[in-house]
Amino acid sequence: MKKNITIKDVAKQAGVSISTVSRVINDSKPVTDEVKQKVLDVIKETGYIPNPLARSLVTKKSQLIGVIVPELSDSFVNEILNGIEEVAKMYDYDILLANTYSSKEQELKSINLLRAKQVEGIVMISWLVDEDQINYIENCGIPATYISKTARDYDIYSVSTSNEEATYDMTKYLIDQGHEKIAFVMTSKDDTCLERERFSGYSNALKEHNIEIDTNLVKRGGTTYETGYTCMKELLDEGVVPHAAFVTGDEAAIGAINAICDAGYRVPEDISVAGFNDVKLAKIYRPKLTTVFQPLYDMGAVAMRMVIKMINNEPLESKKIELPYQIVERESVKLRK
Amino acid sequence: MKKNITIKDVAKQAGVSISTVSRVINDSKPVTDEVKQKVLDVIKETGYIPNPLARSLVTKKSQLIGVIVPELSDSFVNEILNGIEEVAKMYDYDILLANTYSSKEQELKSINLLRAKQVEGIVMISWLVDEDQINYIENCGIPATYISKTARDYDIYSVSTSNEEATYDMTKYLIDQGHEKIAFVMTSKDDTCLERERFSGYSNALKEHNIEIDTNLVKRGGTTYETGYTCMKELLDEGVVPHAAFVTGDEAAIGAINAICDAGYRVPEDISVAGFNDVKLAKIYRPKLTTVFQPLYDMGAVAMRMVIKMINNEPLESKKIELPYQIVERESVKLRK
Repeated sequence: MKKNITIKDVAKQAGVSISTVSRVINDSKPVTDEVKQKVLDVIKETGYIPNPLARSLVTKKSQLIGVIVPELSDSFVNEILNGIEEVAKMYDYDILLANTYSSKEQELKSINLLRAKQVEGIVMISWLVDEDQINYIENCGIPATYISKTARDYDIYSVSTSNEEATYDMTKYLIDQGHEKIAFVMTSKDDTCLERERFSGYSNALKEHNIEIDTNLVKRGGTTYETGYTCMKELLDEGVVPHAAFVTGDEAAIGAINAICDAGYRVPEDISVAGFNDVKLAKIYRPKLTTVFQPLYDMGAVAMRMVIKMINNEPLESKKIELPYQIVERESVKLRK
Repeated sequence: MKKNITIKDVAKQAGVSISTVSRVINDSKPVTDEVKQKVLDVIKETGYIPNPLARSLVTKKSQLIGVIVPELSDSFVNEILNGIEEVAKMYDYDILLANTYSSKEQELKSINLLRAKQVEGIVMISWLVDEDQINYIENCGIPATYISKTARDYDIYSVSTSNEEATYDMTKYLIDQGHEKIAFVMTSKDDTCLERERFSGYSNALKEHNIEIDTNLVKRGGTTYETGYTCMKELLDEGVVPHAAFVTGDEAAIGAINAICDAGYRVPEDISVAGFNDVKLAKIYRPKLTTVFQPLYDMGAVAMRMVIKMINNEPLESKKIELPYQIVERESVKLRK
């Protein structure tokens, strides 16, 4: 095992004092160019890495940003994370990642952990953020942005898409394709701002086309494949056979497609299915999923950029950023004659 | 914004000196039970969090373990990560995650970063680890375990499954189902130990059943959906229509299924397809994928447990741990009459 190079070794080899090396590293007090170059050369030669703990105590900068996620294996979260990572790398920040399995207790613990690790900022991805998490982060004095279903209910920095418009547009698209009996499967049982906006988009589109809202066609589940499967199975078991199903999450939509197939119907020949998010799975699955594209990568990138601006006290144009969505036509929705 | 509680505040409120509080926190020097309780009460009351930088300088323990991954959005990596996280939590370690996008340069940078953050151990997931990464970690003096295609080529701590036996068993299973012309699509272009073991398992099964190895049936691609699609498309474009295709990764296997369908054949009616790993997608996709179950969650859990044992100087039974696999029969392989 090679001995770790210390600041003492660097000082000795450069023929200067330890405090001079420290000045060079931390750029804390003036040093002549000649001495500076000499120290930098020795640092390069020896491969010396300044002790980050001691150094952080001086510079008070950890160059760390904490990212809290509800679930690592969720493709929605994953694509957001890619955006977060790219921007962090671009601005030379490292990420400390905390997975909470959507438990509020774990979220509070994670905030505490990130604070203890002296992160300079936090990107919080949490389905159901409320005063508890928000106040906790605020009390720590750490700049934070949120990606959450409830973010728009609070006066916090957040990134999202225009959910009401997106849901309205997809519902209208389904109506334009000749569907009237449109099941609506929401990906949360909670009455969040996001679910309200989405339901409002769905019902407004129906109303405008003089289609009565049938509560038997509305189900509340979760984001997973399994919840989508169960909701659709319940509908069909109840004897409800819709023309189309709009499931507000891709994994759940694919669960719904499988439930439909297992019940002996075909997608899209008998029942059309539309999803939401446009995760990788939506392009891989057959039939390819017609869905609402949410710019997940960009959402992560923007959230991270916002935090970095906050850390550097740069101005932000808006507290709430909404990114554009798009209806993506693929194979799972068919014109009904 | 609430003022952060400092050690000074705690000392004042408990009526003791700062060094006494420090002794209690770091358990460094004896303090009477009475004083200790008083300090702990005040800490609890005020919600004081010891400055982890200053504290780490004293205890020299960061309670951090670094995890290096080649790709966060790969389902294989994701399921391993879940196992890693659970065990870390169980032993009260936090994880510093570094994503390398399979770039060797980035892997070396990540090791450096993790070293700078003073992780106590590293779990390295890297497809193609070699002397460079291994020596670098060793020189840092950080205990590490590896999950890598090349791990069995080196004298390092690693976790894997018995790839040769697993590939042999699946090939034999396909032969038992009446298939002779069995395409073999490998998930790497590199000649790694893992690919050699897998190819050996495949060819041994064929040989034992007196089936000649046809190199036209062997393709080398990657782990992604796209590479699986391309390899299978190439085969079919070359006029090779196998009875079955054994693709050594589930995402790639599903790519192969889609290429087969796009070429006008059906799976499993015309061509059977088998995968490897048994990731979530294998159960969701239709036809459900027949595959080799690798205990990915357990692999992550065991790798993390090994690192923690190494950190604590606990004995390890073996440097190389192989976990059991299983052939999972689902819908994508059919008996050929």
